[in-house]
Order: sequence, then structure tokens, then C-alpha cells
Amino acid sequence: MQSPHGKTVLIVHAQPEPTSVTRQLVHASVAALRAQGHAVLQSDLYAMGWKAVFDADDFPDRARDARLSFVDESAHAYAHGKQTADVEEEQRKILAADAVILQFPLWWFGMPAIMKGWIDRVWAYGLAYGFRGEGNALRYGEGGFAGKRALLSVAVGGPAIDYSPRGINGPLEQLLFPITHGALFFPGMQVLPTFAVYGAGRMDAASMAQACGDWRARVERLFDDEPIAFRPQNGGDYPDRHVLADHVAPGQTGLLAHIGNARDTAASPVPAAALQEA
Amino acid sequence: MQSPHGKTVLIVHAQPEPTSVTRQLVHASVAALRAQGHAVLQSDLYAMGWKAVFDADDFPDRARDARLSFVDESAHAYAHGKQTADVEEEQRKILAADAVILQFPLWWFGMPAIMKGWIDRVWAYGLAYGFRGEGNALRYGEGGFAGKRALLSVAVGGPAIDYSPRGINGPLEQLLFPITHGALFFPGMQVLPTFAVYGAGRMDAASMAQACGDWRARVERLFDDEPIAFRPQNGGDYPDRHVLADHVAPGQTGLLAHIGNARDTAASPVPAAALQEA
Repeated sequence: MQSPHGKTVLIVHAQPEPTSVTRQLVHASVAALRAQGHAVLQSDLYAMGWKAVFDADDFPDRARDARLSFVDESAHAYAHGKQTADVEEEQRKILAADAVILQFPLWWFGMPAIMKGWIDRVWAYGLAYGFRGEGNALRYGEGGFAGKRALLSVAVGGPAIDYSPRGINGPLEQLLFPITHGALFFPGMQVLPTFAVYGAGRMDAASMAQACGDWRARVERLFDDEPIAFRPQNGGDYPDRHVLADHVAPGQTGLLAHIGNARDTAASPVPAAALQEA
Repeated sequence: MQSPHGKTVLIVHAQPEPTSVTRQLVHASVAALRAQGHAVLQSDLYAMGWKAVFDADDFPDRARDARLSFVDESAHAYAHGKQTADVEEEQRKILAADAVILQFPLWWFGMPAIMKGWIDRVWAYGLAYGFRGEGNALRYGEGGFAGKRALLSVAVGGPAIDYSPRGINGPLEQLLFPITHGALFFPGMQVLPTFAVYGAGRMDAASMAQACGDWRARVERLFDDEPIAFRPQNGGDYPDRHVLADHVAPGQTGLLAHIGNARDTAASPVPAAALQEA
């Protein structure tokens, strides 16, 4: 049932086993989104046989044959319609979507290689970086994917306590900062706090049902929940576009300095302190 | 010239362009190590056509055909000599090495997919995780790769200021924590502070020569420099193996809490404060 107010959501997932926690959560996403009247696009990276490796084959019509520069060739291919068909198709899906959900098992504290390769190849120069607006390169809150939302759903093998504020692995949201802030907020998406299922290797039916219910509730609030309050590059916090102004998070260094406090913004988004405890 | 005291070093790299900054730094590594009398092993992932995607083909002789569990199949394949030949060969190289150097361009604040897939596939259960010692799973400072050193060398497109303590991207060493702490220290390696070349997309010959000289000096101290003072799981800081004891970095949360201060240890390794400023 597609309501006139329905939006379009792209789900990208990276788990080949149909009975896995990740794939059960993907089913829950699709059901929840369709029940709300949204249109669902999917990129099932394993089923697609997605080419993970970013290499010379990504540039069938090179700007320069003598030397392979990924940045220069990406810019050339994107600007001149010379990208490969698989990359173009993924870009079409993202540009058609109001939100992108990435669902994957956490492998070595990051994405499976096939999903990293989806980012590496699809995030073209001129679109996801080197995006020009009013003469300047726009990034962090503005760019080719501005106006879209993003949400990670991760299946984590270890226990939640290992990812707690003082847990041995480090807090999950901080481990994922290179993805949420670096890969998603950078090209302009508003990123929601990550949804995680812990102990994913040994879940019984009851805990799986609970996880699906919790996830479904998050999916239903996809367009309502407050995003992480990452600071936009051009919102005033980085006067030189590189470094925080002295008066912003004074004296603070590190990843969390790039997340605003609720009092800094009008919309009371998720502040840094909440992430630290997540 | 191989000295009787020469060690063995594995260099894993992920850049197909021979004239790239990464590959020039690889040449510098090889030259510096050989000049010191060390034996050099290499894994040139692009030239090898390394299979990045961890999938069912990694398990030609499955423990269970009905459902693909990566953890269970990895454990089965490793324990019973049923891994693929390419994975076994990489494990042989690592186990023969006294140190592993990973050299790559920073793509979206992490490894290129081909190198992430090297970790995903080679880091087997029973070797890199689920490693048993005295009845317990050993990790973080102990495990299958204990006694080895690790060092990252990254070519970064952006300027150093973006990765400075209050730079917009976040400090580089914190962005790499999922790799240094999560992928390398976890299976037991001692990890040295990361070497980075910034502005790698537009270096002139003089700055490239400078970078190669700086890097060569780091390579020459590969077995002398102090590792990052990541806290070992079983050194007393995590009495329950999961969470920091109250008296360790009291009140501190987040990634840097897992790095000791110089005063906490005998060997004056690199303290958390230095990383924050790195």
C-alpha cells in the first residue's frame, strides 16, 4: 500500500546467509517500510555479485592512460558519463532514495569488504566528494547526498558489555565514526544513531523476535528520529573549513568534539554525551 | 645482505598504480629492510588478484551445508586444514614474520576493500580470534599473532590539519583505532604509531623524497620504537575480561581509555595523550 506521502528507502545489505541475523533484520526493514507506504529499493551485495575491488576496470574510458589516479579518473568518469553500469545503477538508487539503510555483520569492527567496496566505488568524485556548490567543495552536512537520511543496522558477534562506555572494544558508535561521520555525513546525509544487535552468533528465537521488534520500531521512526548532531562544515563551527573554532567544544579534542550538544542546536538532536554512553 | 640477526617482515599493500605514493613508500620499505639485513615477504594484493569477498567459496569442505555461519566454518576450516590455498599462504607469511607492515591509501577513512577483505578472510577463528590458551580465549595483546609487531603506513589525500586534534575529520589515529586496536592488537600484535603522508594527491618530487626519508627512518626503527600502549586484556586492567577496572583511567570512557599512560608501564610506550595530539 503506497501512500501519497510514501518515501523511497534504499536498503543495502551484505550477508549471504538467508537465515542470518542480518538478513532477518533486512526482512523486518522491508516489511516495516512497506507497511508505512514507503517504496523499498534493495542492494543485496552478495546476491548481486558486487565487485568489491576498486581498480582500473572501474574506468573503461580513462582521462589518462599512463598513470592511474583514482581521484582524477573518478572525477572524469562521473563528469563524462563514463562510469561502469553497476556503479551508475547504485548511484541512481541512492539519488532516488530519501534514506539509505546499511545492514551488515560487524567484521573486525567495520563493514565486510564487499560493503566497503560499495562505498569505495559508488562514492564518486563530484558526487560524494569534490562536490561543488557556490564555488566551494561542500562536505559534512552538505554535498551530493544532502537531504537524505542514513541508518546503520549491525549484527555484532560479541556481547554488549564489550562495547559499553568502558568496554574493552571501545563504544560501538565511536568505532563506527569513520562510517557514520566519514562516509555518510561527509557527502551530506543526516545519520541516525546506529542500531545494534549484540551476541548475534547465538540468539534464540525469543531474542531474535525481540531484536526484530526493536529494529522495526527504529525503522518506523526513520524519518522522525533525531540524527546524530554532527557539526556541519559550513555552519560556523569550522570558520576555516578545517578546524573547530576555539569557542566550539573548547579544549576538547578527538572524535566526539565533532558532535554538538543539544543546547547548541534548535532541534535537540542526539548529543555527544549520549553517544558516549550508547 | 642478510645478517645473522635479520628478521622477517611481511609487507601487505593495496595500490595498483606503480607510481603512487603508497607504492613509492613500499619501495622505500623494502630497501630499508633489506639494507638492515631483514628478509622481506610481500603481498601485493592488487597484483595477486586477491579475492576480497569473504563468502561460501572460502569453505570448500563445510562443517554444515544447510546454513552458512562464517564463525563456525572458519573454525572448522582452520582446525581441519580445509582453508583455501590463498588464505593458508597468507597465514604462512604472517606466522613466518616478526612484523607486518600494512601500506594503503586511506579511502573513506579506512582500508581499501581489497585489504579489508584480506583481514576478513585471513583472520581465521582459532588463529586471530577464538584463540585458546590455558582454557581461555586470548585476545588483546595475546593470541595467534603474539610476539609480532605491526605498523600502518597510509597515504592520505587530505591535508594534515583536517586530522589534527580538533580537525574536522577527527584525529587519524582515532579513526584507525578499529584497525590498530581492533584488527591488529586483538590477535596479539604490538602496534606502532601510524605513519601518514598527507596531501598525497599532489606531492612534488621534493615532498615525496622527504616522505620517503621520514618513512625509511620509521622502518629502520621497526623493532626499536615503542608500540602504542594498548592495554592487554589479561594484564589486570580488565578484571572481568570485558570492562576497565574502576581504578584504571578512572571516569574515562571511549577509545582512548584503552591506551595506558607512560607512568602505567615500565617501557614508556606511546601514551594516550600523544595519540590525541598525533
